[in-house]
Amino acid sequence: MMIKGAARIEINEVGPRDGLQIERAHVPTPDKIAFVDALSACGFARIEVTSFTSPKAIPALADAQEVMRGIQRRPGVVYTALVPNIRGLERARECAMDEINLVMSASETHNRANLRMTREQSLAQLLGILSAANTQPALPCNVSLSTVFGCPFEGEVNPEDVIRLARSVVDAGASGITLCDTTGMAYPSQVAEMCERVQEALPSTPLTIHLHNTRGMALANAIAAWQTGVTRFDAAAGGLGGCPYAPGASGNVSTEELVHMFQCMGIDTSVDLPALLAVVRGLPALVQRDFNLPLLAAGHRLHTHPAPAWLAERFPPDQLTAGNP
Amino acid sequence: MMIKGAARIEINEVGPRDGLQIERAHVPTPDKIAFVDALSACGFARIEVTSFTSPKAIPALADAQEVMRGIQRRPGVVYTALVPNIRGLERARECAMDEINLVMSASETHNRANLRMTREQSLAQLLGILSAANTQPALPCNVSLSTVFGCPFEGEVNPEDVIRLARSVVDAGASGITLCDTTGMAYPSQVAEMCERVQEALPSTPLTIHLHNTRGMALANAIAAWQTGVTRFDAAAGGLGGCPYAPGASGNVSTEELVHMFQCMGIDTSVDLPALLAVVRGLPALVQRDFNLPLLAAGHRLHTHPAPAWLAERFPPDQLTAGNP
Repeated sequence: MMIKGAARIEINEVGPRDGLQIERAHVPTPDKIAFVDALSACGFARIEVTSFTSPKAIPALADAQEVMRGIQRRPGVVYTALVPNIRGLERARECAMDEINLVMSASETHNRANLRMTREQSLAQLLGILSAANTQPALPCNVSLSTVFGCPFEGEVNPEDVIRLARSVVDAGASGITLCDTTGMAYPSQVAEMCERVQEALPSTPLTIHLHNTRGMALANAIAAWQTGVTRFDAAAGGLGGCPYAPGASGNVSTEELVHMFQCMGIDTSVDLPALLAVVRGLPALVQRDFNLPLLAAGHRLHTHPAPAWLAERFPPDQLTAGNP
Repeated sequence: MMIKGAARIEINEVGPRDGLQIERAHVPTPDKIAFVDALSACGFARIEVTSFTSPKAIPALADAQEVMRGIQRRPGVVYTALVPNIRGLERARECAMDEINLVMSASETHNRANLRMTREQSLAQLLGILSAANTQPALPCNVSLSTVFGCPFEGEVNPEDVIRLARSVVDAGASGITLCDTTGMAYPSQVAEMCERVQEALPSTPLTIHLHNTRGMALANAIAAWQTGVTRFDAAAGGLGGCPYAPGASGNVSTEELVHMFQCMGIDTSVDLPALLAVVRGLPALVQRDFNLPLLAAGHRLHTHPAPAWLAERFPPDQLTAGNP
């Protein structure tokens, strides 16, 4: 069999942060808490719950601390949150986060558009946060690099820039690196090549891949990453999320489709798919809009349907065993 | 690089047959002819134009002969059509088809539901058509096996049944075999394993894979097949198609997404993607309904967007070259 990879993967459910941050609907704090609690019961390795960003920048997540204080933290689940600056780090410490996630872009123009800083400025800020986070008690810091597989403004991104940035933050104490396909520009051979290069450059740093399904390739890219040894995947329930700077871009890889695919392949995801699908069923009500949920519509691949009633009449029972081709 | 396969693939565009046969809207014959002519200009290796089925069974394709007579046949394109019986073969010969496609299911219940025959009866009928088609002048016959990767009524399908059926029709003169994931139940490791087994069993028979995107895995499955050496893919422009016996099932793998992915990987598909996207843009009008066309919405991965206007003001030009991280 040609398709090989690790027998076990870990999923970081990013829907509560990456998904809800761009929804237009106001999601009340108790509903967010219930969403995260329901996700906690699904068996995820990690949940990115919220973002300790300025409420002015992302009003949808202004209740970050209330949400963190309201959820039931399940042993074994790593609760993480996005942190953009030192003030955010302080708020994360107040909430006793298990881990935080820092972010900057691999491409200059996207970094300027998204973070309003040059990459140089963002990197300096990240190094400052890493330094503060690594003073006792140390708080593990993952760094997510956006636009690794392409920039919606610049096009191709230089893999050398990605390696150099990843190395800089790992040298400064980052506990992990996430390669983000922010606007769904990645394709399988590129994903495989980039994942191999980063793993070669930083062999002892856990590597996560963050995929979007903009051009239909999210699951193909996930397999490509997994074939190179990647075992950590970001995903959002229902495929929530997107990017405001990329018109037409659809959301994150859908968690349920990622889990379903790997489970079909016999890979342990630790996620309870029926429980997750029950959460997904509630998403349109949570975010107050309709959206496509293909796996929910179709069901598990082995969810069978009753045969048409006329079959029994047309094919009498004695014929039922006759059909060995 | 872990992701390897053939440098060149061939695409069989099945939209005019597999797509239009289940559309509710009446598509006038001249519109079908224009659709096929536009596809011919895109560079496909093969186009499945229509079905020589009884007009009672599939009224939407009752104009099969008019369509075949009306299209401009482009040298180099193989024009094929579905043929269910000897009468269909006669009509196909009258239309001077380059190739025909026969079909039966790998699972008993789906065969009964879809073709109203046992597999034994269907196989006997196929062998009769193959025998007649191989009398001079011989007409190449591909055989498509449905539900190879799972049956919506029975669940798992025995790979031995698939191999046995494939061997029977190849022994009887079939010029190629298509493994069909009729209701999108296939997953990548299964696709790789099945493709390898069929290629081992029938090493000199061209193998095509026919995928559906019901559960998001179509492109991942395409890569899995390609990694085992498969170079022929069925696909439908806009992801048209589906299966009336599988509620919730979405359509075929979208041709534009398949072409886009392989082209990104440097694989020669022979298809002109901008020309294809122009055809796809016309599909909602052709079939008189709206549907999701993600690649059309997002554009090619290197279709970049202008940076926000405020960037130039915020970052004066002398800073523009400063950002090497």
